[in-house]
Amino acid sequence: MRGQMMDDALTITSIMDFADRVFPNTEIVSVTADNPRHRSNFAEAFARSRKLANALTKLGLQAGDRLATLAWNDYRHFELYYGISCSGYVCHTINPRLFPEQITYIANHAEDQWVFVDVAFVPLLEQVQDQLETVKGFVVLTSAEHMPKTTLKNVHCYETLIADQPDTFAWPELDENSACALCYTSGTTGNPKGVLYSHRSTVLHCMGTNQSSSLSLSASDSVMPVVPMFHVNAWGVVYNAAATGAKLVFPGPKMGDGETLASLVNEEQVDFAMGVPTVWLALVNYLKESGTRVDSLQRVIVGGAACPESLMRAMDEFDVAMQVGWGMTEMSPLGTYNTLLPWMNDLPDDEKMVYRLKAGRLIYGVKMRIVDEEGNELPWDGKASGRLQVRGPWVCKSYYKLEDSDAHLPDGWFDTGDVATIDKYGYMAITDRTKDVIKSGGEWISSIDVENAAMGHEDVQEAAVIGVPHPKWTERPLLVVVKRPGTDPSKEELLGFLEGKIAKWWIPEDCVFVEQIPHTATGKVSKKDLRAEFSSYTY
Amino acid sequence: MRGQMMDDALTITSIMDFADRVFPNTEIVSVTADNPRHRSNFAEAFARSRKLANALTKLGLQAGDRLATLAWNDYRHFELYYGISCSGYVCHTINPRLFPEQITYIANHAEDQWVFVDVAFVPLLEQVQDQLETVKGFVVLTSAEHMPKTTLKNVHCYETLIADQPDTFAWPELDENSACALCYTSGTTGNPKGVLYSHRSTVLHCMGTNQSSSLSLSASDSVMPVVPMFHVNAWGVVYNAAATGAKLVFPGPKMGDGETLASLVNEEQVDFAMGVPTVWLALVNYLKESGTRVDSLQRVIVGGAACPESLMRAMDEFDVAMQVGWGMTEMSPLGTYNTLLPWMNDLPDDEKMVYRLKAGRLIYGVKMRIVDEEGNELPWDGKASGRLQVRGPWVCKSYYKLEDSDAHLPDGWFDTGDVATIDKYGYMAITDRTKDVIKSGGEWISSIDVENAAMGHEDVQEAAVIGVPHPKWTERPLLVVVKRPGTDPSKEELLGFLEGKIAKWWIPEDCVFVEQIPHTATGKVSKKDLRAEFSSYTY
Repeated sequence: MRGQMMDDALTITSIMDFADRVFPNTEIVSVTADNPRHRSNFAEAFARSRKLANALTKLGLQAGDRLATLAWNDYRHFELYYGISCSGYVCHTINPRLFPEQITYIANHAEDQWVFVDVAFVPLLEQVQDQLETVKGFVVLTSAEHMPKTTLKNVHCYETLIADQPDTFAWPELDENSACALCYTSGTTGNPKGVLYSHRSTVLHCMGTNQSSSLSLSASDSVMPVVPMFHVNAWGVVYNAAATGAKLVFPGPKMGDGETLASLVNEEQVDFAMGVPTVWLALVNYLKESGTRVDSLQRVIVGGAACPESLMRAMDEFDVAMQVGWGMTEMSPLGTYNTLLPWMNDLPDDEKMVYRLKAGRLIYGVKMRIVDEEGNELPWDGKASGRLQVRGPWVCKSYYKLEDSDAHLPDGWFDTGDVATIDKYGYMAITDRTKDVIKSGGEWISSIDVENAAMGHEDVQEAAVIGVPHPKWTERPLLVVVKRPGTDPSKEELLGFLEGKIAKWWIPEDCVFVEQIPHTATGKVSKKDLRAEFSSYTY
Repeated sequence: MRGQMMDDALTITSIMDFADRVFPNTEIVSVTADNPRHRSNFAEAFARSRKLANALTKLGLQAGDRLATLAWNDYRHFELYYGISCSGYVCHTINPRLFPEQITYIANHAEDQWVFVDVAFVPLLEQVQDQLETVKGFVVLTSAEHMPKTTLKNVHCYETLIADQPDTFAWPELDENSACALCYTSGTTGNPKGVLYSHRSTVLHCMGTNQSSSLSLSASDSVMPVVPMFHVNAWGVVYNAAATGAKLVFPGPKMGDGETLASLVNEEQVDFAMGVPTVWLALVNYLKESGTRVDSLQRVIVGGAACPESLMRAMDEFDVAMQVGWGMTEMSPLGTYNTLLPWMNDLPDDEKMVYRLKAGRLIYGVKMRIVDEEGNELPWDGKASGRLQVRGPWVCKSYYKLEDSDAHLPDGWFDTGDVATIDKYGYMAITDRTKDVIKSGGEWISSIDVENAAMGHEDVQEAAVIGVPHPKWTERPLLVVVKRPGTDPSKEELLGFLEGKIAKWWIPEDCVFVEQIPHTATGKVSKKDLRAEFSSYTY
């Protein structure tokens, strides 16, 4: 028997309509390449999205066509998000930090029709435009007066393109399962793979993450997403803010600039900000050096990588609560969020820190489990570590144009590629990547835990741990270290330093010093390259 | 183009699984007829729901069968909610305060197969059991030792029924559009009509109302639903609590007992409670008389009827913030919720009160509009008043077994039957019921506003205003008053009292005194009966 409730579809259009109607005057403040403080609001932004929608119609696109963006966080990118998706096209955000070959691969694989590009990335596109097989033209996100000289073919100026368009548009009625956005993972192996979000998955992620134990935004908030809009939709906040009336403060190209971030916080009364650890490191370093305070800033969500304890403690000194969130491109992205249970607030500081540094508890809507190598579910006891698997209506089923890919397991779950523990209070902690975990004597050693311990030594600038084949133990850990300039620690000193900090059998067999450790385009340590570098190393 | 995200269904089962896994130890505290403080938790409750599911299977039911409850808020009713809906049956909550004929009509119309009943309502069912056409038997919600003597046929004891069942059960994979619950509106005209909720509508209502500007529950909350579980699923809180890990405190049959409510708040550290104005009036009266405080109580949601200003101010004195919510059975029920915008907190007290008393702002997921008699949309200016219409995925499309009913308008919207204004900040205020509004000289007079003004006179115990045909103005208001015992105000005094409080042309033509004003089964003034009573009255 079917219920008799309305069939209204879950679409991004409904989020836009809501904000337009209920919070027309809520501000959107942007730093752009040509304006240090552009001020707008939801009503203006959505009026411009409607102008854009009219302009897109004139380009003769088909429903479902992919339109790419290469852009920082600002109001024009915001307009593109809504104008493209609500028109029935797919907003394909490309990470401009990728290597040119990757950008070319991604744009061709996605069959992008047009590319909307910030002035700063025009040279990058000029370099690859002849390899772009499906792109019909380019739109530079600027005004006529700031339009750069360019060799790009069939190029438009964004402001000119939308200027004469009417600001009314009849948005199509969309199926909630239709695609709205596309984002490629910059995996460490193989070609990038595309996650094709639907309107439904996006709305449900927005509603799920707006719950009180997660982002929990409201019209009282002023939110600064320092996570890029080309990285999993800025963790969804572009939708969360509109669904709640939160003010948006976009830092534009000034993502890693502590001074700009601090002044944005203070001038726009930002109380909630989002970004990766390096961003907050830049902010806290600036605050310390300059003696500046950020009193309005209450909460910061940190994700994308583990949050170092030192960073969390440094932010504590500025009365900013860091909250760890965890997810991935394939999860829209959020799966867990870290808020403490009431009784944990009464714990001694160090015990509290143990919980605060974990990846957090599940958000309702997502399920998770940890399993051993045979696929048996492991207990939530904080000790057993296993492959972390998830499922839910905002988790990827298969990759774009790879419908038969292994994105999900036979029973419908998605293997995150992470190894994790979950404690009895539901707090999950990532201990490693599945492919980086070191199998020693039938047990697993967490390379991340060993690295974190080694990073605690003052002479270590960067440390990475990989497994190396071992005749007796299958694998044994090898510690690879970049010395801090001007220091010269010995291997015995570093290995000795680890004693008492990690299990005795986790202590690496050996330590080698290198000039630099290889990184991926997104700044993560490339264990794949590191293992290749040490492929001839033997115990 | 379809997105490639998982198709996981939005089901109540997923809420249950979440709480069972993430918050097994979160408490459920109940007052029951036979135990002043029954203590349980999510893990225990859901284990008992699984025992119940096994017992239901043995009863030989079909998917979609309706199972009725006549029960107060306690842990057994909680188990029924999940055990019935997640098994694929429909949990049909019946209001035991209805007249016996209405209960009979409702049970027969729903074709209920079994009735789960509190001991207190056994006599009521004994009285009507011979008229129940489809009911196969009864289950009394108690233990063997408290089982009453009864003439009910084919009667079981709940605890005996589930005692020997296994506490494992393979919940069926349900279509998210399948029906999960049924609730009849006790309309003031015609027969009661059933709203048939789906798993999808219930989950979306839960996610929508758990956002930060609405109920905003979290694992830090201890929640007391004083709104009955037979009234629109206790405003959904049974699901909201499970999806967030909030502790539940059920007052059982002690709904209107200020002393019990106060002691539950203090002993269980309740910080959030939900109920109609009369409940909070009972609480505040008790607090004043006894000198008791309720320091843990932070927020109270008040709905079901307009919140009197005097009540809100009285609760303010106890540092309890009253937040108005608005909705209806056809809306699952919530549509708007009142939290102030940041700048409103700086307003002088009286101006702030104007906003606080309104029905609040839209919750994302629901749309609303006000229209004039020709269906033209009216502006959100706080002045224009019109028919209030809503739509969204948790709004009723049609009534049960009345698929062709007028539940929705031709364009898919639902007419609430209310007349409302919406101000430029999105705050909606109900000014009347459509059928009670008084049409005078082409304009509308809000009977509610006139009543509220009249109720401000100290000699008025109760006041109601109806429209009476008028040769020149179409209708003119008539004020009907019950005098406070021991007082004897004149009609001239009361009508004079209204001057300056409402528009001059809103002042009733006449005032009549009565011994009592007729009420419906749910305690609302029955304007229909009042109009019938004064059908021969003429100007």
